[in-house]
Amino acid sequence: MTATLAPVRFEISPEQYRHWQLEFDGPIARLRMNIQEDEGLRDGYVLKLNSYDLGVDIELADATRRLRFEHPEVRVLVIDSAIDRVFCSGANIHMLGASTHAFKVNFCKFTNETRLYLEDMSAECGIHTLAALNGTCAGGGYELAMACDEIALVDDGNSAVSLPEVPLLGVLPGTGGLTRLVDKRKVRRDLADVFSTVAEGIKGRRAEKWGLVDKSVPSSRFKQWVDDRAASFGDADAPRGRSADDAGVVLEPLGGEYTESGVTHRYVSATIDGRTATITVRGPDGTPPADAAAARAQGGDFWPLRLARELDDVLLDLRFNRLDIGTLILESKGDADQVLAYDAFLAEHAESDWFVFEALAYWKRVLKRVDLTARSVFALIEPGHCFVGSLFELTLAADRSYMLDDPEQPTEVRLSALNRGALPMPNGLTRLETRFLGDAEALEAVLAHEGAWDAVAAQDAGLVTLSPDDIDWEDEVRIAIEERASLSPDALTGMEANLRFAGPETLETKIFGRLSAWQNWIFQRPNAVGEQGALTLYGRPERPVFDWRRT
Amino acid sequence: MTATLAPVRFEISPEQYRHWQLEFDGPIARLRMNIQEDEGLRDGYVLKLNSYDLGVDIELADATRRLRFEHPEVRVLVIDSAIDRVFCSGANIHMLGASTHAFKVNFCKFTNETRLYLEDMSAECGIHTLAALNGTCAGGGYELAMACDEIALVDDGNSAVSLPEVPLLGVLPGTGGLTRLVDKRKVRRDLADVFSTVAEGIKGRRAEKWGLVDKSVPSSRFKQWVDDRAASFGDADAPRGRSADDAGVVLEPLGGEYTESGVTHRYVSATIDGRTATITVRGPDGTPPADAAAARAQGGDFWPLRLARELDDVLLDLRFNRLDIGTLILESKGDADQVLAYDAFLAEHAESDWFVFEALAYWKRVLKRVDLTARSVFALIEPGHCFVGSLFELTLAADRSYMLDDPEQPTEVRLSALNRGALPMPNGLTRLETRFLGDAEALEAVLAHEGAWDAVAAQDAGLVTLSPDDIDWEDEVRIAIEERASLSPDALTGMEANLRFAGPETLETKIFGRLSAWQNWIFQRPNAVGEQGALTLYGRPERPVFDWRRT
Repeated sequence: MTATLAPVRFEISPEQYRHWQLEFDGPIARLRMNIQEDEGLRDGYVLKLNSYDLGVDIELADATRRLRFEHPEVRVLVIDSAIDRVFCSGANIHMLGASTHAFKVNFCKFTNETRLYLEDMSAECGIHTLAALNGTCAGGGYELAMACDEIALVDDGNSAVSLPEVPLLGVLPGTGGLTRLVDKRKVRRDLADVFSTVAEGIKGRRAEKWGLVDKSVPSSRFKQWVDDRAASFGDADAPRGRSADDAGVVLEPLGGEYTESGVTHRYVSATIDGRTATITVRGPDGTPPADAAAARAQGGDFWPLRLARELDDVLLDLRFNRLDIGTLILESKGDADQVLAYDAFLAEHAESDWFVFEALAYWKRVLKRVDLTARSVFALIEPGHCFVGSLFELTLAADRSYMLDDPEQPTEVRLSALNRGALPMPNGLTRLETRFLGDAEALEAVLAHEGAWDAVAAQDAGLVTLSPDDIDWEDEVRIAIEERASLSPDALTGMEANLRFAGPETLETKIFGRLSAWQNWIFQRPNAVGEQGALTLYGRPERPVFDWRRT
Repeated sequence: MTATLAPVRFEISPEQYRHWQLEFDGPIARLRMNIQEDEGLRDGYVLKLNSYDLGVDIELADATRRLRFEHPEVRVLVIDSAIDRVFCSGANIHMLGASTHAFKVNFCKFTNETRLYLEDMSAECGIHTLAALNGTCAGGGYELAMACDEIALVDDGNSAVSLPEVPLLGVLPGTGGLTRLVDKRKVRRDLADVFSTVAEGIKGRRAEKWGLVDKSVPSSRFKQWVDDRAASFGDADAPRGRSADDAGVVLEPLGGEYTESGVTHRYVSATIDGRTATITVRGPDGTPPADAAAARAQGGDFWPLRLARELDDVLLDLRFNRLDIGTLILESKGDADQVLAYDAFLAEHAESDWFVFEALAYWKRVLKRVDLTARSVFALIEPGHCFVGSLFELTLAADRSYMLDDPEQPTEVRLSALNRGALPMPNGLTRLETRFLGDAEALEAVLAHEGAWDAVAAQDAGLVTLSPDDIDWEDEVRIAIEERASLSPDALTGMEANLRFAGPETLETKIFGRLSAWQNWIFQRPNAVGEQGALTLYGRPERPVFDWRRT
C-alpha cells in the first residue's frame, strides 16, 4: 500500500466530506455518520453498514479541528448515524485484511489520535460530546462512542454495543477500546472480559448497569431524549470567551507542494535524501500582532497556527506516504527573538482569548505527534536557527539533539514561558520534566536560568545531547545519521517507544505504548493474518485454523 | 521447543548449581557467575563468555529464594563473575536464535520475573545488592546489573557496559533494560538513546557521569573497593528480626509428580483435559501454629509457604511445558475457617517475624505470576471450596469467577485482613482496588462488610462475575470454557494483558505491558527472525537484510 498507490492527503474541508454530515443548530452541532459504501479511499472493499476506512477518519479529524476554530458558538456535539438501526460497525474488515502491516499500524495510530482529539476538544473547548447510538454499535464504532463524554444507547430489544474483535477477528479492539473500557469508563475487569469476548455484545439496561453506556433509552423516546439532552448544554459557559458573538476562524487550504523529493509549505518543508527527511521549520516573518483581535484578524495566517497545521501535514505525509524514511532531521531557520516574542504573546493571551489558545493547543497536539513518530528524530541546532521557547520543544521531542559549538558563529538557545507546562507530552509531564526525571536539581537550574545558553553551556545543562565543535560537527552528525539509518527499523521503533515516555502513564501512553504494541504483535501473528488466520478469513465460509500454543 | 524436548523443571538446590557459585562470609553473600559453556539446558549452543540460558536463570531465581529463607544473616549480596575481564555477555544469542517464538517470550518473562525478585529481595529483606562488574557487561548482563541496587564498574580502559541488542541483533534489551534505564536509573532519554545504539557500550567515568553505573573504580582498587563496600553493610539492621542468631529455613524439594495428565503436589495439583488445566488448591490440614517459632519449626511444611511453592511450580510447568493449554480453571477444596485462621496468623506475625513475612511475600509473588499468566484464568467457587481471604485473591486474579448459587448446598465467600494491602498486584494496587477502580463506594462497602456473602450477595457486591443457580451452573460454566477455548490464543493474550492492569503503572507493569509487548512484536518481525534477519544471522559472515519500511 505504498509506492503504487496514490498518496494519502490529509487536507479536506466540509464541502468535500463524503461520509459525514456536519450540521449546526446554534450551540448544537451534529456529526451524522452516513458512510458511502462505494467511496472508500482505496478500491477493493465496500464500506457497508457505516464501516469506516482512513478516508472516513480524515473527515472526522478535520471536523473536530473546524469545530474548534470555526464554531465558537458550539457547546455540544452529537455524533449519530444517518442509517436506521445502525450506528457504526467499526473499521472495515476487508480493508484491514487487504492492508499491509505498516498501513494497519498507521491507520490505527491515526484513528487513535482522532479519538484523543475528540477528548481534547471536549476538555479544552467546553464542547460536550454525546454519542447517540441509534442502533448497532460494534468494534471501532463503540470505540468512537467511548471517546465521547457520554453514550446513550437506544433500547429497542436489539441494538447492542460490542467489541467483537477478539471473538470474530482474532485481533484487539485497538483503537483505545480495551484501555478506555477499564481505564476511562472503569468497567470492572471481569465484566470487561465477558463483554470483549461476546461477539453479539450487550444491550439495553445491562449495558447501562455494566457501565458500557451512560443511558439506555427506549426507542420511542430516544430521539427526544437526545434532543433534550443536547439542548441542556445550549447555554453552558465556554472557556476563554468562546462565544456565539464571535465569528470563527476559517481554516483555508494550506496548498502544499508534494513531490518525490519532499513537501513544501510556507513555514515548514521536508526534503528527502535517501532514507532521511530533513524537516525545516521557519520562524515568523515579523513581530506578533498587537493584540488578540489582531491575531484573529490574521486568521489562518497567524504564524503559530499556520506552522502547526503545516508541520502536522508534513508529519502525516511522511507517516503514510514515505514509509522508507527512517530518520527525521529537524532544523530551523529564523529570528529567534521573534519566536520568543510570539511565545510571550501566546502566553499572555492564551488564557483569555480562545483563538490564541486554539493556536497553542494545536501546537501541543502536533508536538505529541512528533513524540509518537515511529521514526528516529534528530534535531540539529546550527547558526541561524530559531529553536527557542516553543520551538525548542521540537529539540526536546527529538531522540537526540546536536548543537554546533563554533566560536566564529556562536549559537544559543533560550527557553520561554511555554516550556513550563503549556505543551505537555502524552505522559502528562513537560518535555523538560521528562528529560530531567532523575535530576530535579538540573531541572530547577534550567528553569531558574535567565537568558541564553551557548552550545557548551547547553550541553552542560543537559539541554542538548552533544555540542561538537566546528571541526568535528560534519563528521559527527553525518556518522550519527548514517549509523541510525543502518539499524533495524523495527528495533528502533520499539526502542524509541520505550525510551521516550519515562515517568507516569496516562490513557494516551497506555493506548500507544501498551495496547498498540500488543495489537501490532497480533497483526504479525499467523492466527490473525496468516492464510488461515481469523482476520484473513473474515466473511468467508472457512473457519480460521489456529496455532493453539499460548504465548 | 515443546513436545519433543524434555520438560523444563524449576526445582533445584545449590549443590546442583552448575553456573553460579554461592558463597557466604557472615553477612556477605556472593553470587559468582561461572557459566559452564557446555552445560546449556538444551543442545545446540555454547554458553561462551558468561552468556546465559534458562538453566542459568533457574539457578539465579533459586538463589534469591534461598537467600531469603535460608540466610537471615545476610545483609549484602555481591554479584560478580569468576571470569577475568568478563562480567556477563547477556542471554545466549544462538540459544535465542534457535528458539521458538513462544520459548523466547516465556524465557524473557521468566528472566524479567527473576530481576524483579532481586529488587523485591532488596526492598523487603534488607539485603543490599551490589553488581561488581569486573569486566565487559553486555545486554542481559547489564540488565541484571540494573536490577541491583548499585553498580560498580572496573575502569581498566576497556570494560564497558552496553546494550547492543538494537545495533547487533535487531531486537530490544527486553529484560527490563530500556525501562530500567529511563524509569529506574533515570538516565536522560537522549543519552539512553545514544547508549542503546552504541554496540561497544560506554566505559569508565562517562558511564558514571551518564548514570549508567554508580561508581567507576580503577582496576588496581576494584577488588578492595568492592570488599570494603560490601563490608560496610555488614552491621546493617534487617527488618522483622532477620538475624544472624536465627537458623534459616531450608527449602526442601517439593517432589511433585509430573505426568501427561498433570502435576500433583501435596496442596496443589493440575489436571489436564484437552486445552484446559484445572488447578486445585487445598486448604490447610489443621489449625495454624501456636506462634511464629512454631511456624518456623514447621519450616517448609508451613502451609502458606508450601502452597506458594507448589503453585509457583505448577504455573511454571504449565507456562513452559504445556503450551497448548489455553485456559486455567482455579478450584479450591478445604476448610475455609482454617484458611482464615492462617490469614489471621499471617497478619498478626508478618510484621514482627521475618519467616512468617517471607511466606506471605512468596504468596504475593505467586499471585503476581497468576496476574501475568498468558492463559485465560477462570475461578469456580463451589461447595467445599476455601476461596476466602488470601485464597480469594486467586479468584480476583482470574479473568472471571463463577460462584454456584444452590440453596441445597449454600456457598459463601469471606475476606480477611490480607485482602487490604499485603498482596498488591504489579500495578501497586490491591486486587480489590483494581476491581473497583470506578466505584469507590462499592469498594468501601465491600471492605466495611462483616461476615460472609452468599453467591447472590457476592455477585451483587461485585465480588464474583456470575452466580448461576444449580440448574444453569453446568451448562453455563461448560459453555464459557468451551467458548474461551475456541478463541484466538494471541488475541486473548493481548486482551488479557490490557484488561488486567487498569489504573497506575509501575516499573513492573511497564516491563510486562509495554517493553515485553514491543519485544514480542519484534520477535515476530522478519527483520529480526526472518532468514536474513539480524537475530538469525548473528555470528555469521552475512549482513542482515532489512525491510526498511518503518512502522
